[in-house]
Amino acid sequence: MDPAGVEIERKFLVDALPDGLDATRADRIEQGYVAIGADGVEVRVRRRAGTSTLTVKSAPGERRVEEEIPIDDRRFASLWSLSEGRRIGKTRHLVPLGSGLTAELDVYDGPLEGLLTVEVEFPSLAASAAFVPPPWVGREVTGDPRYANQSLALHGLPPGG
Amino acid sequence: MDPAGVEIERKFLVDALPDGLDATRADRIEQGYVAIGADGVEVRVRRRAGTSTLTVKSAPGERRVEEEIPIDDRRFASLWSLSEGRRIGKTRHLVPLGSGLTAELDVYDGPLEGLLTVEVEFPSLAASAAFVPPPWVGREVTGDPRYANQSLALHGLPPGG
Repeated sequence: MDPAGVEIERKFLVDALPDGLDATRADRIEQGYVAIGADGVEVRVRRRAGTSTLTVKSAPGERRVEEEIPIDDRRFASLWSLSEGRRIGKTRHLVPLGSGLTAELDVYDGPLEGLLTVEVEFPSLAASAAFVPPPWVGREVTGDPRYANQSLALHGLPPGG
Repeated sequence: MDPAGVEIERKFLVDALPDGLDATRADRIEQGYVAIGADGVEVRVRRRAGTSTLTVKSAPGERRVEEEIPIDDRRFASLWSLSEGRRIGKTRHLVPLGSGLTAELDVYDGPLEGLLTVEVEFPSLAASAAFVPPPWVGREVTGDPRYANQSLALHGLPPGG
């Protein structure tokens, strides 16, 4: 996301993995929350494809702040140690959907094993409204805080979700 | 502080500013807390002498983590906006004390105006124990959580402190 821009994104659960997943790019992602402020500001570290970042994100709201800072391996390990009990692991597959759209399909592991979600980012509100999900995509959970990664890391899978 | 090392530091209130302060190096410091986790992990941004840093610190405890990451002006401004209501401003004077020791004398401003503290770091426990504070140094507050900058930013001056 462009820090100055507005992200138009929808999120869905996934009923079954689509065919041809082996041919897509897949990255293992480890993510740990270093601190979550009382006002919802989150500070997390993430390791993906050999690259580590520290991200500070404001709580969802009208003026969104998101800063992603590259960090080296030593710093990642140090900060990761502060995230115990607030971690998630997942493998992200980039699945082309046609019309220039790409689905980010996340296959969670560890305590969240069994959870599959997909996020699609759109170039415009019109493209978002016109989107017809492929058959393997299930219930929409856009904006559902229980499926935010912060919440999944802290509270695990929503009951009956 | 060397991240791998152990810091031996004592903190005192200051009764009156020492003479000759104009001749010491003085830096204005602005510090804002971006997030403070429920377990005490703090994430703060600081601007000092034209340099900005993001610091992540574990809660006080046996295994201390402290990571200081340089950030640029744009990132500082962005993260600073997340610290509203959790900020302090102070001018730090470096006052030579003899025996190779330097006092970090902080003169707070804004809502904390009137507060003066001094911190001295020692090369050894023996040097710390042998330290005789100069006459302008007042009551010791080493380890008093009410005088930690995080607490001062959140709660202001301790009542009657």
